Amino acid sequence: MEKIVSLCKRRGFIFQSAEIYGGLNGCWDYGPLGAELKRNLKEYWWRCNVQERDDVVGMDGSILTHNSVLVASGHVGGFSDPMCDCLLTKERLRADQVPAQSGTAFWYTGAKSKDGSWSVEKEFAVLVASEEAARDARKTAAKFYVQLAAAGVSAADLELQGERAEAVTDSVRFNPANGSLLTEPREFNLMFKTKIGATSDENDPSAIGWLRPETAQSIFCQYKNILDSSRMKIPFGIAQIGKSFRNEINPRNFTFRSREFEQMEIEYFCRAEDGLKLTDEWLERRLCFYENIGIPREKIHILDVPDGERAFYSKKTYDLEYEFPFGIQELEGIAYRTDYDLGSHQTGSGKSMEYFDEESRERFIPHVVEPSAGCDRTVLAVICEAFDEEELGKDGKSDVRTVMRFHPRMAPIKAAVFPLLKKNEEQVRIAKEIVKELKPWMPVFYDEAGAVGRRYRRQDEVGTPFCITVDFDTLGENGEENKDTVTIRHRDSMEQERVPVKDVLHWLIKRIH
Amino acid sequence: MEKIVSLCKRRGFIFQSAEIYGGLNGCWDYGPLGAELKRNLKEYWWRCNVQERDDVVGMDGSILTHNSVLVASGHVGGFSDPMCDCLLTKERLRADQVPAQSGTAFWYTGAKSKDGSWSVEKEFAVLVASEEAARDARKTAAKFYVQLAAAGVSAADLELQGERAEAVTDSVRFNPANGSLLTEPREFNLMFKTKIGATSDENDPSAIGWLRPETAQSIFCQYKNILDSSRMKIPFGIAQIGKSFRNEINPRNFTFRSREFEQMEIEYFCRAEDGLKLTDEWLERRLCFYENIGIPREKIHILDVPDGERAFYSKKTYDLEYEFPFGIQELEGIAYRTDYDLGSHQTGSGKSMEYFDEESRERFIPHVVEPSAGCDRTVLAVICEAFDEEELGKDGKSDVRTVMRFHPRMAPIKAAVFPLLKKNEEQVRIAKEIVKELKPWMPVFYDEAGAVGRRYRRQDEVGTPFCITVDFDTLGENGEENKDTVTIRHRDSMEQERVPVKDVLHWLIKRIH
Repeated sequence: MEKIVSLCKRRGFIFQSAEIYGGLNGCWDYGPLGAELKRNLKEYWWRCNVQERDDVVGMDGSILTHNSVLVASGHVGGFSDPMCDCLLTKERLRADQVPAQSGTAFWYTGAKSKDGSWSVEKEFAVLVASEEAARDARKTAAKFYVQLAAAGVSAADLELQGERAEAVTDSVRFNPANGSLLTEPREFNLMFKTKIGATSDENDPSAIGWLRPETAQSIFCQYKNILDSSRMKIPFGIAQIGKSFRNEINPRNFTFRSREFEQMEIEYFCRAEDGLKLTDEWLERRLCFYENIGIPREKIHILDVPDGERAFYSKKTYDLEYEFPFGIQELEGIAYRTDYDLGSHQTGSGKSMEYFDEESRERFIPHVVEPSAGCDRTVLAVICEAFDEEELGKDGKSDVRTVMRFHPRMAPIKAAVFPLLKKNEEQVRIAKEIVKELKPWMPVFYDEAGAVGRRYRRQDEVGTPFCITVDFDTLGENGEENKDTVTIRHRDSMEQERVPVKDVLHWLIKRIH
Repeated sequence: MEKIVSLCKRRGFIFQSAEIYGGLNGCWDYGPLGAELKRNLKEYWWRCNVQERDDVVGMDGSILTHNSVLVASGHVGGFSDPMCDCLLTKERLRADQVPAQSGTAFWYTGAKSKDGSWSVEKEFAVLVASEEAARDARKTAAKFYVQLAAAGVSAADLELQGERAEAVTDSVRFNPANGSLLTEPREFNLMFKTKIGATSDENDPSAIGWLRPETAQSIFCQYKNILDSSRMKIPFGIAQIGKSFRNEINPRNFTFRSREFEQMEIEYFCRAEDGLKLTDEWLERRLCFYENIGIPREKIHILDVPDGERAFYSKKTYDLEYEFPFGIQELEGIAYRTDYDLGSHQTGSGKSMEYFDEESRERFIPHVVEPSAGCDRTVLAVICEAFDEEELGKDGKSDVRTVMRFHPRMAPIKAAVFPLLKKNEEQVRIAKEIVKELKPWMPVFYDEAGAVGRRYRRQDEVGTPFCITVDFDTLGENGEENKDTVTIRHRDSMEQERVPVKDVLHWLIKRIH
């Protein structure tokens, strides 16, 4: 994984957001190649799930979300984790990851350094879990304070005030990082809150806005408008690609668990009796999709989420998980959510969410199947799957080729075009003409610097599937047979073939579309 | 404008966000056709400004922004308007839009309804601007309270308490909507603030996050990473498309001034001596762009922003303005921003932003030219420009055709395919085959309902440039000449031509790319 993160930064796929200011935890910026890769993924998803289908239309909703939407969906009330606050650092920890403990708690009323340069004047406590370790309590406390005092107060230099020992049994939580007492668990909402509009009233509920925690809710809220304007008939879907936000307590695994992320979601509306069947159909369709972007089926684990572990309203949920280097983790969830969502918004808004079936003359709230994929996660899976280090050495000499084996459809650069010799004006002219012809249709890179072998390697490292070289054969200098043809070198096999210059554009489009 | 807004909702271009909950002011959702239109615009912008250029690369940065980034850029300190708060409604008004006034202020200590069902127990004041109107002061106050009391306390039913009159001269502001006194103006930041991470400390500055007010800052922050990974040489640009957010006091003019909006920005880095020249070059390039999406040059007004009205760091700024139905308003700004931005971040982060020129062996902070376009505004301009109502009536009978004259490149649906007769199986089969062939390449709509004339009109209203009809000629029933050809009807001229079925895909691609 380290190698992948390093390559992502070195070659401009992914950078930490605000890196020059120490980084914004859980947020990432896509560099030139990462932005292209992500664009390719989104574009292909849209093409398969919207453009090529008669029964799905797209939408693009706002990120800022009305409080009432998320009250109705249950997010304001329920999208939370129980959290404890560290009394000293104000750090927040998930209660379920910090067990209540037994041991001896040493309470202090304050602390200061002997030279008076630093002090804390509040009550705090330190837990020593075992009786034997009780005598080390002061040291633990000192260690903690040294952490706290960035100025560097040494343990020996510390005066702890008002020591009081207390036995505790299984009832309190302490911060494992510094031993300090934690507050009782409270529910902490994982959504980002902001204030919309110009009111000075901090408590005005109409001024509360949220960053959406999922794109799905705007689909449900516009379901009726879209139905009325597009005249779709059930079963039909509404698809959306867009950013969502969750204030993850512990962002981790590179871009995998981040606070800002992009989703690719479909809400597929249907009759109740078709929900389970359609869930299975979407599962199959989504597996094909991953194959078509270069993630083989055997690397995707299908988890049929058992009763009791699904959301209470879901009758069936599949998690599609990928074998990341840091473990098997979820890429996409396909959930049959019944009529819970539309029902909730009908109750919340007082507006009818019913569908009228003209043939059967029935009115009902549609059920919904939701294939919801993580865009950044899929980009990361595509990167992990593509990454390879190939030993090409001969005669005992090591020569490692780093190659990103992207599916041509996903590759950020589709083709590199080289003149064999930088100094050959005719080669340069033809190479630049080819670039000019290709550029309106795909991202293409022109390179004339260094030996061709090194140029290949640079392209291998960013996953360019095809390298096109204009050479002396192109000029007809080695006979008529290869005149006006170029060499196209395949990234994976490193094999080369000759293609007429006039066919290059179509040759490429056929392979990358 | 009303007609346009109505068509946008009726045909699924643009809906108010959270409409079923009364709407979220300043936020909009794109429906099926709007999402496609916006995609086309972004795609074409990216193609012209990134893909087809050798000197521009793309990026895609996070929306959540580190406090330090916006402190350094000056947004935390300076991106604000002076605002006054209404003492009663807590509404906030821009001080520069509410002049300080003279007149008689009537102060009250409170108010209640005579039946005791409703009361306000705080001091408030009502201004009566003219002496003559002083006797109507009570009525003014009553009117105001009736507004406030949603429960409907009538003016006659109101008891005002502790009346005290006071002459005021040019020193206080009153809310024009209800006459109530406003507070002294204070600076109100226009950025949306949120809290990132899990700290319980409300005042921890490291927990402050902002929704970016422009995409530009993430480009400046990643400038060095992108330079290092892409090895671009000056002059070069970094382009980005993405959402930005501003807490507009008064969102208005449909999607024109909204709180959530998408930008298409380029930061083009150069030597100081090339700044002015490149600003003019970008102006020309951007005017061509608008022509290529169907906005004629004569509809764009170029404002050369005079000294004193530009941002203090800008040596040249052009505003490109479009003739919207609600007035001439800005679509894009092209600003030569000198080295202000990179310089600010060098100071703010302590990291070098210098560029090293290998040829001249010089080190310097590049200057920057910024063409910054509003994506939603451009979509709106494209919609306004396309909207037309054409009188086709004959013999004194009115027949108005509503037609969206989108450039084919922008049109949400590129082609509609019809069998002339729904009941003719062979026509239906061929039409569906054409749809199947086209769908991987473009959004296509199949329609067999109603008379062909009505199908044309439905497509005209959403701006589909080409309608393809499979008819009896296609089947060869009227001779060999037109066998295996279809009728393609042009939206704007309503003229028709016959095209061989096998050429339809390329015929279309040539016209929409």
